[in-house]
Amino acid sequence: MEKLTIVKVGGKIVEEEASLRRLLSDFSAIEGYKLLVHGGGRSATRLAEQLGIESRMVNGRRITDEETLRVVTMVYGGLVNKNIVAGLQALDVNALGLTGADMNLVRSDKRPVKEVDYGFVGDVKEVNAGLLASLIGKGIVPVLAPLTHDKQGHLLNTNADTIAGEAAKALAPYFEVTLMYCFEKKGVLRDEQDDESVIPQIDKPLFEDLIQKGIVQGGMIPKLENAFEAVDAGVKQVVITQASEIHRGGGTVIAS
Amino acid sequence: MEKLTIVKVGGKIVEEEASLRRLLSDFSAIEGYKLLVHGGGRSATRLAEQLGIESRMVNGRRITDEETLRVVTMVYGGLVNKNIVAGLQALDVNALGLTGADMNLVRSDKRPVKEVDYGFVGDVKEVNAGLLASLIGKGIVPVLAPLTHDKQGHLLNTNADTIAGEAAKALAPYFEVTLMYCFEKKGVLRDEQDDESVIPQIDKPLFEDLIQKGIVQGGMIPKLENAFEAVDAGVKQVVITQASEIHRGGGTVIAS
Repeated sequence: MEKLTIVKVGGKIVEEEASLRRLLSDFSAIEGYKLLVHGGGRSATRLAEQLGIESRMVNGRRITDEETLRVVTMVYGGLVNKNIVAGLQALDVNALGLTGADMNLVRSDKRPVKEVDYGFVGDVKEVNAGLLASLIGKGIVPVLAPLTHDKQGHLLNTNADTIAGEAAKALAPYFEVTLMYCFEKKGVLRDEQDDESVIPQIDKPLFEDLIQKGIVQGGMIPKLENAFEAVDAGVKQVVITQASEIHRGGGTVIAS
Repeated sequence: MEKLTIVKVGGKIVEEEASLRRLLSDFSAIEGYKLLVHGGGRSATRLAEQLGIESRMVNGRRITDEETLRVVTMVYGGLVNKNIVAGLQALDVNALGLTGADMNLVRSDKRPVKEVDYGFVGDVKEVNAGLLASLIGKGIVPVLAPLTHDKQGHLLNTNADTIAGEAAKALAPYFEVTLMYCFEKKGVLRDEQDDESVIPQIDKPLFEDLIQKGIVQGGMIPKLENAFEAVDAGVKQVVITQASEIHRGGGTVIAS
């Protein structure tokens, strides 16, 4: 089975010229099949500001009314996605920018209104990976924007971590998938004051132990739970690392 | 050889909710393989206005400075393109939105500065149709935005009529291509006061005759010259028609 590396990067890295250039160079150095998933929240907030649209966040998620959906469609699907694609093409990486609507790649349901009305936000229901897998096999490098659709004509703002995880699971029958989540540290740290104290590998017993000792806490807990879920669903490994390390193989490996 | 219908529509139709819905319904009714090329100039002008960026046009072409390139990347590549894709998916048309940077589909050169500096505007140099043709053969319906790239990391604003014409020529070895240019009339009119006086077919001798008689004039002359060029390059026929007629087979046919 051929190897596929899926890299998820947040907004900050892809939105600044210098860090984007560095990222694309590092990403292009990854050997074998690859796929990039990106965010773009800061640019969306900035454009919304310029247009006099208020950005409202609840639990770190953007409330997406109709005007905000237009903004994220322009920024995620247009500005950020196409600049990444053009940048990769310059490095001879045959990139193809996609939202979940393209080729009906990712279908989602509009999140039901409970305590919070998130608006046009999608919860992923289905990833159609067959055609995507065949394109990857032909050397195409997909670049996924954090937008999906409901197959009824509506685009939906969708969490990029979730898209990366769901894509990884859906592609697992076709490839030996490594899923890399980039964040600001080199990996999961044993001592948060020491950037070099990266825990090289976490399995489930160690995960429980790290939670009990308070070493893993807060937002890292659901991140790691999602990672274990992906591994249980057939993804070879999930790596939590820094963007500058994606072609080097460092970081924390989550394996079953 | 299988048939492929390429439809080029201007901005106005795809930028208003009601006319867009009608267009997508008509487009979905076209039998066989199909491809859509769209504009989006009015939305770009409106967004530029909202952002305090001046829209400057010379000979009907937009002067594209760096800020304007950001605007058209957001509007053409994001807003307009992805709304069309989502709308077609709702009609069970398996659309895939693309710029020329995606899969290195359309490479262009930045237009040289002569009397006018058009800025980031591209003149098409190369269409890589092989992979596109194989996707079309798998039932994918490409939706092309009027953006190309120089393969050196820069997106370039590119005339949608030109993209449609060049795509038609590049796909001619793979399909029996009909290229439809939609405009505000039902076709080329014998009497511009009479909307029903559509000339059903124009060949080269008739074209010369119509110019001599002043029946064909102004912007229609280069439009028809481009149509003959496409036909000479292997496109089966070019049709000039109204968007509401694309699934009906009316309009003026240009054939060699």
